[in-house]
Amino acid sequence: MANIAKKVSWSGRGDDRGERTPLLNGDEEVKYNRQVPDTLDYDNSENQLFLEEERRMSHMGFRCLEIRRWVICGLIGFLTGLIACMIDIAVEKLAGYKYFAVKLNIEKYTELGGLSISLILWAVLNSAFVMFGAIAVAFVEPIAAGSGIPQIKCFLNGVKIPRVVRLKTLVIKVFGVICSVAGGLAVGKEGPMIHSGAVVAAGVSQGRSTSLKKDFKIFEYFRRDTEKRDFVSAGAAAGVSAAFGAPVGGVLFSLEEGASFWNQMLTWRIFFASMVSTFTLNFFLSIYHGKPGELSSPGLINFGRFDSDVTLNYLSFFPLHFPGGVLGALFNIINYWLTIFRIRYIHRPCLQVMEAMLVAAVTATVSFAMIYFSNDCQPLGQDNTEEYPLQLFCADGEYNSMATAFFNTPERSVRSLFHNPPGTYNPVTLGVFTLAYFFLAVWTYGLTVSAGVFIPSLLIGAAWGRLFGILLSFIIWADPGKYALIGAAAQLGGIVRMTLSLTVILVEATGNVTYGFPIMLVLMTAKIVGDYFIEGLYDIHIKLQSVPFLHWDAPPTSHWLTAREVMSSPVTCLNRVEKVGRIVDVLSNTSTIHNGFPVVAHTSENDEPGIICGLILRSQLIVLLKHKVFVERASSRLSQRKLQLKDFRDAYPRFPPIQSIHVSQDERECMMDLTEFMNPTPYTVPQETSLPRVFKLFRALGLRHLVVVDNENRVVGLVTRKDLARYHVGKDGLEELHLAQT
Amino acid sequence: MANIAKKVSWSGRGDDRGERTPLLNGDEEVKYNRQVPDTLDYDNSENQLFLEEERRMSHMGFRCLEIRRWVICGLIGFLTGLIACMIDIAVEKLAGYKYFAVKLNIEKYTELGGLSISLILWAVLNSAFVMFGAIAVAFVEPIAAGSGIPQIKCFLNGVKIPRVVRLKTLVIKVFGVICSVAGGLAVGKEGPMIHSGAVVAAGVSQGRSTSLKKDFKIFEYFRRDTEKRDFVSAGAAAGVSAAFGAPVGGVLFSLEEGASFWNQMLTWRIFFASMVSTFTLNFFLSIYHGKPGELSSPGLINFGRFDSDVTLNYLSFFPLHFPGGVLGALFNIINYWLTIFRIRYIHRPCLQVMEAMLVAAVTATVSFAMIYFSNDCQPLGQDNTEEYPLQLFCADGEYNSMATAFFNTPERSVRSLFHNPPGTYNPVTLGVFTLAYFFLAVWTYGLTVSAGVFIPSLLIGAAWGRLFGILLSFIIWADPGKYALIGAAAQLGGIVRMTLSLTVILVEATGNVTYGFPIMLVLMTAKIVGDYFIEGLYDIHIKLQSVPFLHWDAPPTSHWLTAREVMSSPVTCLNRVEKVGRIVDVLSNTSTIHNGFPVVAHTSENDEPGIICGLILRSQLIVLLKHKVFVERASSRLSQRKLQLKDFRDAYPRFPPIQSIHVSQDERECMMDLTEFMNPTPYTVPQETSLPRVFKLFRALGLRHLVVVDNENRVVGLVTRKDLARYHVGKDGLEELHLAQT
Repeated sequence: MANIAKKVSWSGRGDDRGERTPLLNGDEEVKYNRQVPDTLDYDNSENQLFLEEERRMSHMGFRCLEIRRWVICGLIGFLTGLIACMIDIAVEKLAGYKYFAVKLNIEKYTELGGLSISLILWAVLNSAFVMFGAIAVAFVEPIAAGSGIPQIKCFLNGVKIPRVVRLKTLVIKVFGVICSVAGGLAVGKEGPMIHSGAVVAAGVSQGRSTSLKKDFKIFEYFRRDTEKRDFVSAGAAAGVSAAFGAPVGGVLFSLEEGASFWNQMLTWRIFFASMVSTFTLNFFLSIYHGKPGELSSPGLINFGRFDSDVTLNYLSFFPLHFPGGVLGALFNIINYWLTIFRIRYIHRPCLQVMEAMLVAAVTATVSFAMIYFSNDCQPLGQDNTEEYPLQLFCADGEYNSMATAFFNTPERSVRSLFHNPPGTYNPVTLGVFTLAYFFLAVWTYGLTVSAGVFIPSLLIGAAWGRLFGILLSFIIWADPGKYALIGAAAQLGGIVRMTLSLTVILVEATGNVTYGFPIMLVLMTAKIVGDYFIEGLYDIHIKLQSVPFLHWDAPPTSHWLTAREVMSSPVTCLNRVEKVGRIVDVLSNTSTIHNGFPVVAHTSENDEPGIICGLILRSQLIVLLKHKVFVERASSRLSQRKLQLKDFRDAYPRFPPIQSIHVSQDERECMMDLTEFMNPTPYTVPQETSLPRVFKLFRALGLRHLVVVDNENRVVGLVTRKDLARYHVGKDGLEELHLAQT
Repeated sequence: MANIAKKVSWSGRGDDRGERTPLLNGDEEVKYNRQVPDTLDYDNSENQLFLEEERRMSHMGFRCLEIRRWVICGLIGFLTGLIACMIDIAVEKLAGYKYFAVKLNIEKYTELGGLSISLILWAVLNSAFVMFGAIAVAFVEPIAAGSGIPQIKCFLNGVKIPRVVRLKTLVIKVFGVICSVAGGLAVGKEGPMIHSGAVVAAGVSQGRSTSLKKDFKIFEYFRRDTEKRDFVSAGAAAGVSAAFGAPVGGVLFSLEEGASFWNQMLTWRIFFASMVSTFTLNFFLSIYHGKPGELSSPGLINFGRFDSDVTLNYLSFFPLHFPGGVLGALFNIINYWLTIFRIRYIHRPCLQVMEAMLVAAVTATVSFAMIYFSNDCQPLGQDNTEEYPLQLFCADGEYNSMATAFFNTPERSVRSLFHNPPGTYNPVTLGVFTLAYFFLAVWTYGLTVSAGVFIPSLLIGAAWGRLFGILLSFIIWADPGKYALIGAAAQLGGIVRMTLSLTVILVEATGNVTYGFPIMLVLMTAKIVGDYFIEGLYDIHIKLQSVPFLHWDAPPTSHWLTAREVMSSPVTCLNRVEKVGRIVDVLSNTSTIHNGFPVVAHTSENDEPGIICGLILRSQLIVLLKHKVFVERASSRLSQRKLQLKDFRDAYPRFPPIQSIHVSQDERECMMDLTEFMNPTPYTVPQETSLPRVFKLFRALGLRHLVVVDNENRVVGLVTRKDLARYHVGKDGLEELHLAQT
């Protein structure tokens, strides 16, 4: 797989520190130009300060913390639900105005002739909406592009993507998704909800916002990676829950994507956040729809009720199993090449905006052409479920059935495909629609707009599923809506390759557990078939960013590798009492790519490694330097200024770069005593440990640094996430990847 | 909490090795009388043999293993489903005959007078059924008593309860549960399904049965604790799935109870097993019921369809939140004292059988009295959903409504309470029923019969929930069936205190996700309220066995404890090349309570500890001794017989005791080279590591032994499960428990 270096990364600006490197030039230069890889540390640094604080805390204190965690989860759920509600209403309103205007116009010109004016109106409206969204994303916050799911997957995995959980990102994301859905793109508003939930969680749990430069001085205890990760899991779950009305699916999503951790209380809190989120959305949307007591909108997308009375003919679903995997893989392959093309040639913000507008205009044109050339007229039903029935060239009392698919928000189209009575759609119409929408959706995913891929996938699958159902109904009795459901599941599964969580999400969205078994089978087949060709869409995009993403297990055939081969060596060690000058030099040295430094009893002048006695993080050293926690001589400890855990928390998570800290020449001669601040009991492994064993320890505990020692406990190397992530199984067995230092 | 020592343990026979210790005499004697604590090792011993095998294996080989795992999971699901189906049909048939006979008899004597004969018939029939079940359990396999859920929780946690996953246990369990349900006890057949599924999994995955003394020579690769545990998780999930028609709930149950592990592929396999299980049950039961295509019996208990059309008045459920926790706690407290009473006074098998028969007779008598004195006649419905309508003293065309609750299997009674139309039950009837059934159920749980507590809990809750609904319906319109559902959830939650998994199980059994939110809230409240008084029923029974059960986290206030305080010390170490005589002595020494021995570079004669170079297990040493892997002198390695991994697998899991291995005096002088067999890279921690940190490592990786080393990597102690499990949070902060060495 091509290794696309950093020019157009998710954060869209190359790198926070501003250097730009030419594209695809190999990453050797990149590796040593950049400073430090940003990863998250899910292992607490149990230094003296931390232990003292914990030991001071009473049992009651821990209980209060626990209550605070529950309150935060409730807040996360509530705010996520509110945001979902806001997005839904905004999209409804804007899309409503748009379709109303276009419909009026079409009706006016159907008789007069000159429908090309309607087309232009439609295309211009679409492009205008999309333009606003794309400008916001491309110029203000590029990380808000796409669904955000790959980024959240990375975050939960332990990779820090810059600016991914900031308030600004949230604002742009919400604005962007409203624009792109209202702009008629082949996108959904569900994926971005997951990102939104995560941002809400990160913000609420930290009790402050850097974007607003506001610190509420609450929840300070939770200002570290471990706690933040837990809350972000809850936020992501709340997002899924609001998007699909699937609280259990949300929990499972967080666990499936995130967790090397599983803790009963945590899971229960995540579930609480999910439940509150869907309930909030449901409550406010029901009020908005004027039926406050009914609570009939648990999610942004609602599949509608499927009956379970009829016999589910499991066998007849069988032919639907394979197209999902194949079409999903095709989607992913095309999107992969398209993404590479975009990275190479469309990396200027203005080009990105123009591409997005072009896609919007093309979408409108294709839709218009489809409707125009379709002569599939259907009688207007009694119940008139169509929001905007277009008569066009149909007889009075009839409407153009292609228009239900194209002249509508994608969510409504999905529901129509699921629930419209047999005979609503003409097979040819559906075939053409599938084809057209497939390519539109492929083209759309990866544009510089906020948008999700769930709904377009469901729509494509529902279309060909229903097509199959219609064809089948020529032979046996079949309700095409059910086949649409299974087809939708197959297509979505073939694209994203989620497993348990997706089954549960779809079952919850369907509201009927009877469909669990066929949905599970179809998702399983889609995954197996799809994985044969290419991996899932999110994994592709993660891989294109070359981030050190850790999978569940080490590659199976990696037992012959040991820590000695895997580790980075030699590793920069510090003394327990170290000269300030050396620390500054070490931190300033751009070739020191690590974020943690083993502390040794004494580094001898010769090459003999020292005995490990702790581990200190770059961020901790920065804080120490900033507060000038120096002593004059190695022996005197008294003059050392007492630093508190609070000082570290205040600096979290954006520690200043070393360049911003001024250390005078005199100060360089002082000493720093690291004893209190280092983690005195870092995890270590012997050199002979096999890679799977190292991997298991690293992944299960969410480590960032694992010190490799020899028989006498002397430091010989350091294993980081990057060292582990580069091994993966390719076609010819174990391969080594080149990873950027993100 | 009283520490009930080993006289009447789950295995019912004191101990496998036959010694009996007086009851409640403190466990000091027990500790040193017994040999070795049996725990499971979820960390692979990565010795040279293992690594060589893994390195020899191709990528294709690993893929084949994976396929085999899937096949096994499919088999587990299929067999579990079949067993559930068999139990269901057997219970239906037997209970059918019984109720038919009694009904005929009652009808005969209602007019003649002399209903006491009917009562006697009923009581005798019940007692007879229960007698068979109780005899089988008490005399043949005591571990088959109860629901088996605490035992499976322990197994998944890493505690080995003897004989818990044997075929014999399964046979007795199935036979026992059929007898006790058919015998009319206040029990369900759902809990035992979880145990049954686990046994099936353990058997199938190992490809052999010790009970049958049959080795199929398949799946040999899976003969170790790690793999076995994974399959047992799948089996437990399949059991839940078959019991409640709740495949997702099953997966969550396994994860909630078992897992410090979470692996996407594993979870997906577990889900597969669950799905196959419910589908198998559904398929065969549907055929049995004569409606092969309908697939309407996904689980042993089926709550029936709840409609979601009406407004769920969430607020009106609020008063139901508290009784669940309070009544659940009351149930647990009474049962706790009853269990202690039983352990002290009813520990002879014949006494146990008699108690069970007594309970059966009393249950019949109470039921009869309730029916007899109730004058709550209801008209026979058109649809006649009652299986055995008893007319008794009612007018023609009417039936006695108390009889629907008592003259029926508990599953049917639950369904009646959920779904019978408003007005079916008289409030007084329900009140009396709740009271009577509550005490019957408390008395029944813990009898020496196979039986679950889920259904009685649901029934009690449904009764008072419906009662509340009826009372409420005097004020506002209310469907009492819905309140029955919420009450059932509250009561069950108050007793077992499961959280996420129980919510999902109930939602899946209801078939309607709309009830998710109120069920979650009520379970949450029940847990919070109940935990205030006493812990959950399963935890109580686990605690009474004093097994070293590890909770999710270390107690919050335990940061001041370090590995040095927690570890066992001094610890017996072995040399890399050790004298056979010393090994035999170490293993024979009853004061050596550990199952693993650190291997050190050299044990000096003075007290200085050696540098760690590996860890070898007792079981490995036994196999080595049995195969006489000796060398004449320390220097010659050539004569050493080559042992294969297969030899260890063949001996797994029941390694012979050291006493059965004869070592001659000459052989005692030989040496054993442990290098190839020991795990060369055991996990270690420094002495200063805090307890929560040790705990996290231990729990996350499922360890059995964790070596504590000093700065120079010299062994200073060993942390085992028992060392960690004894700390727990009591009323006055951290407490230390006394744990038996199980």
